[in-house]
Amino acid sequence: MQRLLTPVKRILQLTRVMQEASLTPARLLPAAHQRFSTVSAVPLAKTDTWPKDVGILALEVYFPAQYVDQTDLEKYNNVEAGKYTVGLGQTHMGFCSVQEDINSLCLTVVQRLMERMQLPWDSVGRLEVGTETIIDKSKAVKTVLMELFQDSGNTDIEGIDTTNACYGGTASLFNAANWMESSAWDGLRGTHMENVYDFYKPNLASEYPMVDGKLSIQCYLRALDRCYAAYRQKIQNQWKQAGNDRPFTLDDLQYMIFHTPFCKMVQKSLARLMFNDFLSASRDTQSSLYKGLEDFRGLKLEDTYNNKDLDKALVKASQDMFNKKTKASLYLSTHNGNMYTSSLYGCLASLLSSPLDKLVSSTSDLPKRLASRKRVSAEEFTEVMNQREQFYHKVNYSPPGDTSSLFPGTWYLERVDELHRRTYARRPV
Amino acid sequence: MQRLLTPVKRILQLTRVMQEASLTPARLLPAAHQRFSTVSAVPLAKTDTWPKDVGILALEVYFPAQYVDQTDLEKYNNVEAGKYTVGLGQTHMGFCSVQEDINSLCLTVVQRLMERMQLPWDSVGRLEVGTETIIDKSKAVKTVLMELFQDSGNTDIEGIDTTNACYGGTASLFNAANWMESSAWDGLRGTHMENVYDFYKPNLASEYPMVDGKLSIQCYLRALDRCYAAYRQKIQNQWKQAGNDRPFTLDDLQYMIFHTPFCKMVQKSLARLMFNDFLSASRDTQSSLYKGLEDFRGLKLEDTYNNKDLDKALVKASQDMFNKKTKASLYLSTHNGNMYTSSLYGCLASLLSSPLDKLVSSTSDLPKRLASRKRVSAEEFTEVMNQREQFYHKVNYSPPGDTSSLFPGTWYLERVDELHRRTYARRPV
Repeated sequence: MQRLLTPVKRILQLTRVMQEASLTPARLLPAAHQRFSTVSAVPLAKTDTWPKDVGILALEVYFPAQYVDQTDLEKYNNVEAGKYTVGLGQTHMGFCSVQEDINSLCLTVVQRLMERMQLPWDSVGRLEVGTETIIDKSKAVKTVLMELFQDSGNTDIEGIDTTNACYGGTASLFNAANWMESSAWDGLRGTHMENVYDFYKPNLASEYPMVDGKLSIQCYLRALDRCYAAYRQKIQNQWKQAGNDRPFTLDDLQYMIFHTPFCKMVQKSLARLMFNDFLSASRDTQSSLYKGLEDFRGLKLEDTYNNKDLDKALVKASQDMFNKKTKASLYLSTHNGNMYTSSLYGCLASLLSSPLDKLVSSTSDLPKRLASRKRVSAEEFTEVMNQREQFYHKVNYSPPGDTSSLFPGTWYLERVDELHRRTYARRPV
Repeated sequence: MQRLLTPVKRILQLTRVMQEASLTPARLLPAAHQRFSTVSAVPLAKTDTWPKDVGILALEVYFPAQYVDQTDLEKYNNVEAGKYTVGLGQTHMGFCSVQEDINSLCLTVVQRLMERMQLPWDSVGRLEVGTETIIDKSKAVKTVLMELFQDSGNTDIEGIDTTNACYGGTASLFNAANWMESSAWDGLRGTHMENVYDFYKPNLASEYPMVDGKLSIQCYLRALDRCYAAYRQKIQNQWKQAGNDRPFTLDDLQYMIFHTPFCKMVQKSLARLMFNDFLSASRDTQSSLYKGLEDFRGLKLEDTYNNKDLDKALVKASQDMFNKKTKASLYLSTHNGNMYTSSLYGCLASLLSSPLDKLVSSTSDLPKRLASRKRVSAEEFTEVMNQREQFYHKVNYSPPGDTSSLFPGTWYLERVDELHRRTYARRPV
């Protein structure tokens, strides 16, 4: 095979302005909804049919502004004439310079598509990136594209990167089309996406991220404020249409769960949401319902990401609510630590396995399973961490260690061969 | 921040057996459908409403079988007592050994969930992986999980990896739920997924893939056979229900486009599909419609991935169809080379910009734009490739090069700072 780079990328965009608009109902994940939260307060679906004519309405293609003629390359590479032009059926080959990467390619096509179609930036509700070329292990290309939307103020854009060789693009197209047909299209969700370098993994040869902890916490809280504001706005609009004109507050929710980098962050987050409620309440409600917060009446959300007095007062004011509606969701995080991508669902599993809400049998054994783990010393822990570092990105080895320390039925890495191919084995059940 | 690994992952699975089953219509991307191919032959939708009760029906959680007590770690790390246990709110921390990686974690939870819920392996129509931990830049975790489905013969499973720090998991859940609500659920698509190391990028510090070219071509053709078989089966079933009992062949399609690693591969692929038609035709049809293929009657698909005589005969037999229905889609590939993920959509854009089907204004200028590129010598090309290699994974640099060589309006990489943060600038329009 020739050494070919990735000279062309495109974004397929399905934008909601171009669809036959119909207000969609608050029916996402109704099974869960019926138990948790706001379902009774939400009006019934106006329509529950698929929209018509979901598909590709415009395409934008990027290719580099330079190419090499394949007959030139045949001569240069000293191969028989026709090897590329006839054998592969290729006459010219575009290629990217060092000034072009997956981000710059996507920035160009998105902007060109929007401008050419004269789409307002605030009309986009979803943006997908399908790629097999990454320059960061954790920070999606999509986050960079959010820069283009900055001036419009539109950060409520779902979708993210999908990756797998040549299938990534097709998967992203299917995801976008499915979304438009689903009840989630313009449904009852608040999303906040922006481009921030607070947590990312640009050193591909390292297992560790680059983290700006302070910035990361600030981003978390700002995203929380924005998501909550978007969600409240949407549900209040729906209520209003159903003749129920009142503000949405945390009292309307049965439980609240959060992405959990560490447990204390969650308590602060719930407190933060209460601050949102407080700021948008009437003066009378502020005095009667939110004891101890009177001093913070005049503050603005964006000025209070590092206000420790406020944090303290908020945690105190929301303590009771935290105990009733959130604490049970932190069981796994408390006992196991940060779960990253799966964190939110670890909270859901904890809540479902809690005495508060014993719903789903598949999570009821969590406490028993957690209790059956082996406690190791801090020294042994450090040794295993060093081992991970030592074997990261190596080839031709079998990981050392006693597989009997794994839970029964656990798959484990058995070998990485000299071509990086991985084989797995399973501990007997 | 503590150095925490990724100790818990889970797969959220929404399986189609658990949904109120209703045969869904062939209505994917109807806008395109109405122009291309089979729409008139497909029966109308039986139902076009969202299914009820789409949501999470079961959860499976993975955590490591070992943990370190956080009070032990406080002492070991020589920090004040309570820093982790009170400050972070964490009492125990699980961690993965070298025997555990993202693949092994996912293998375990998927198998456990399937077994615990007693789901047949052939009942799954979609599988999503949400992760921020990757061990290959191009080969998705999902491909490894296909090993579990191997004995069941089920390879028709949509979905792939979605990646972005903590949002990857939520994106994958939303994608799965949207799919179930959409017309694509059990719709008219043929998918083939399996675990093969033919093309992958395990060396994260390198821009280049590992490629087994011969194996990759064989995989391509096998996937083609399987996808086509699945598609034919589905559409023939739909036709049968509408009272139209006949085999589907390439004659039922107006155009055929393919993922294009190189153009010759596409011509071989179309020929391959004709071989599929040929093998399932009656003896009479074989003799009358497929001249020159009589000698290959007794062969089986799986035995013919490297049969050059057959290849030659098939390309000849399908030449006319290739010229009419596929050739126009190869315009971009011929002039620009392999586009990887976006390859199929480069073919679509080519077709739409061709005289055959002048549909969409956004692609009509492709020939003009391609013609305006700069031709560089093979020596200059090689120099740029070397530059890419030299700057790959470096920090604190501005890529050299004259931005005036880019097309007007193109975004380009302006700088990578010492923390790997990338800034982009745009060439004036």
